[in-house]
Amino acid sequence: MIQTDILIIGAGPTGLFTVFEAGLLKLRCHLIDALPQPGGQCSEIYPKKPIYDIPAYPEILAGDLTTNLMEQIKQFEPGFTLGERADTIEKQDDGTFIVTTNKGTKHQAPVVAIAGGLGSFEPRKPPIPNITDFEDKGVAYMIKEPEIYRDKDVVIAGGGDSALDWSIFLTDVAKSVTLIHRRNEFRGALDSVEKVQELKNLGKINLITPAEVKAIVGENQVTGVVIEEKGKEPYMIDADHFIPLFGLAPKLGPIANWGLEIEKNAIKVNNALDYQTNVDGIYAIGDVNTYPGKLKLILCGFHEATLMCQSAYKRIHPNKKYVMKYTTVGGVEGFDGTRKEAPKAVVKAIQ
Amino acid sequence: MIQTDILIIGAGPTGLFTVFEAGLLKLRCHLIDALPQPGGQCSEIYPKKPIYDIPAYPEILAGDLTTNLMEQIKQFEPGFTLGERADTIEKQDDGTFIVTTNKGTKHQAPVVAIAGGLGSFEPRKPPIPNITDFEDKGVAYMIKEPEIYRDKDVVIAGGGDSALDWSIFLTDVAKSVTLIHRRNEFRGALDSVEKVQELKNLGKINLITPAEVKAIVGENQVTGVVIEEKGKEPYMIDADHFIPLFGLAPKLGPIANWGLEIEKNAIKVNNALDYQTNVDGIYAIGDVNTYPGKLKLILCGFHEATLMCQSAYKRIHPNKKYVMKYTTVGGVEGFDGTRKEAPKAVVKAIQ
Repeated sequence: MIQTDILIIGAGPTGLFTVFEAGLLKLRCHLIDALPQPGGQCSEIYPKKPIYDIPAYPEILAGDLTTNLMEQIKQFEPGFTLGERADTIEKQDDGTFIVTTNKGTKHQAPVVAIAGGLGSFEPRKPPIPNITDFEDKGVAYMIKEPEIYRDKDVVIAGGGDSALDWSIFLTDVAKSVTLIHRRNEFRGALDSVEKVQELKNLGKINLITPAEVKAIVGENQVTGVVIEEKGKEPYMIDADHFIPLFGLAPKLGPIANWGLEIEKNAIKVNNALDYQTNVDGIYAIGDVNTYPGKLKLILCGFHEATLMCQSAYKRIHPNKKYVMKYTTVGGVEGFDGTRKEAPKAVVKAIQ
Repeated sequence: MIQTDILIIGAGPTGLFTVFEAGLLKLRCHLIDALPQPGGQCSEIYPKKPIYDIPAYPEILAGDLTTNLMEQIKQFEPGFTLGERADTIEKQDDGTFIVTTNKGTKHQAPVVAIAGGLGSFEPRKPPIPNITDFEDKGVAYMIKEPEIYRDKDVVIAGGGDSALDWSIFLTDVAKSVTLIHRRNEFRGALDSVEKVQELKNLGKINLITPAEVKAIVGENQVTGVVIEEKGKEPYMIDADHFIPLFGLAPKLGPIANWGLEIEKNAIKVNNALDYQTNVDGIYAIGDVNTYPGKLKLILCGFHEATLMCQSAYKRIHPNKKYVMKYTTVGGVEGFDGTRKEAPKAVVKAIQ
C-alpha cells in the first residue's frame, strides 16, 4: 500500500504544481495518472504546441511547461503511479481514503486532490467487433514501450500526427510498418507528412489508402488483419501488432461514481474557500472542477492547487499553526536535503 | 483625459498580467503607478532576488518576472501613467469612473481594477523638521532620473542596498557624492558594500559615519546640509541635492477613502465570483484584496485578474456573448497587428 499526505489524481500541470505548494507546507504527494508519463494532455496530446497564456511566458511549448514543472517539484520527491486509472475510493474509519487503480494498486492518504483535467484519456476505438478480445494481445491504442515492436510486423491505422509520427519512429524498430488510413490525405505537421512520403518511396513504410481494417485475425494473439481497400476485395496481411491511433477522448470515467456532486461533466467545488468537493477531504482542482465563473485555464489550476493545499494542511495538522513565508524571504527546503534561497545581505563596516 | 476600457491601479505583476487577459477579450488597459517604472515591488524593492513559487519557473529573478510580463503584454499596447498616485475616484452618471492622480492627470474608464499590492510605496522620511519644504527643491526620496544629478553635489543618506547602489552609480554622474549613515556597518549585497569601500578608498565617495543629517540649509532650494557626526560639533557641507534612502513602506493611501469595504488594510472582494468590491465596476485583485482563505501570492493575483476580466467584459459588453478560445487553439491577436499562433497542421495526400 502506497501511503502519502496528499494523493493527487492526475499528473497534468495542476497536479504537478500541487506537489510544489504541498512541499512548501512539508506535505508529501503521490500522483496517479492513466497516461504513461506526467504532463497530462500537455505531454500526450500537444507537447509541441505553444501556449501563450501562462503568466510571464510570452510563449512556452506544452512539453516544456511539463519539463519545467517537473524540475520545480523534484526537490519534493513526488511518487508516481503511471499508466493506471484511479478506479475506486473508500473512506476508512480513521478518516483516510484508499484509492485503487484498474490494475489493483492501492494508495492511502488523508487528503485526495482530484486534478483529473477533462478526465482520463481513453482511446477512440475502431468499430471492429472482437477488438477488445485482442487488447494486450497484439492490439494497443497507445504506444508506451516502443521496444516491444522490435522485429515485428506492425500495422498502424490513423491519419493524424500520432499515426504519422509513430510510423516514422517504428521504421527503425519493427520488421515491417504498414500504415492504413481511410483517406489519401493525412492531417499533421508538414514535416511528418513529408517524411512519411519519403519513407513510403524508400519502401520502408507500406502505405495502404484509402482503406480500413475490418477484422482481426488470430487465436488468442493477433496474427493478421483484414483490410478493405477501395476497389479491391477484402484481403488479409500478416501482423503481430495492430495499433489504431484514432485519438484520445477524455472521459470523467470512474470518478463520476465517487459520490461527488457533478455538474456539466465536472465536479462542483466550494470556490469561495478551498476548492473542496461535497465530500470532506476530497478536493477537485483544475479543469476537472466547476464553480460560478470557472475558466478551464492552467493558470487557474495553479491558484486552486495553492489554496487547496492550505486547507489540506489544516485537515492533516488540525492543531498546528502554519505561518506562511514567502519563498523569496524564506527560501525553499527540499525533502531531498536541498535548499534554495536568495543570497543573504551582509552587514559589514566600511572604514 | 485618458480613456480606456479597464483602468488598472498598480503596475505590479497582477496589474501587468491583467493587460494580457483583457487583451484576449479585446479590451484596452491603462495603468497608474506611484513608482517611476512598472513591476511594483518586484522592480523597486527586490529586482535581483529570486522567486521560487511562480508556476513553471523553478527560479526567476523578480526583475526578470517584470521583463517577461512586459514582453507578454506589449502586443496589447497598454498605456502607463507612472510616478503618479491615484488619489480620487468619481462615478459619472454614465456609469464610468474618473480617477485623478496627485499630479492632476485624469483617466476615464467603465471598469477600474485595483491591483495596488500592499499599497503605494511611500518613502520613509528622516525626522528633519522642514524637510517637506524642500521636496522637489533638492530633496528626493527616490531617484527617478539620474541625469538631474549631473555635475551636482549630492548627499545620500541610508545604510541599505539603495543607498549603496545609487552612491556607486552617481560617482560617474555627480560632481561629488557624500554617503552618510548612522552606523559604520552597511547592510546589503557583498558586492555593493565592497564597491563602496573601494570608491571611498579612491576618494570618489565621501563617506561620513556614524553620522546623521540634522538640518537642511537653503532658501527655496537646498544649498547644504548640517551633519551631526559622532564626537564632533555639528557642521555644514555644501549640497545641491539631499537624497535620504531609508526604504519605502507601503500605504493603502487615498484608496482607503474610495468608499470600499476595507478589512485588515485590504479591500474585501467577492471571491465566489469575480473579485468585485462592494462598488459595482470596481474590482480589487492581487495582494490588495482580501477574502476567506486569501493568500498574498503573485500566482493568485494572476488567477484573480483572469476571472475579473471576464466579469469586466460582461459589464462593458452586456449584450455580446464571448466564446473563450484557448490561446493554443486560437492564437493571440495583438492590437499592434501582430498575430501569434501554433503552426497549423497541413492536410496533404501521400501517394
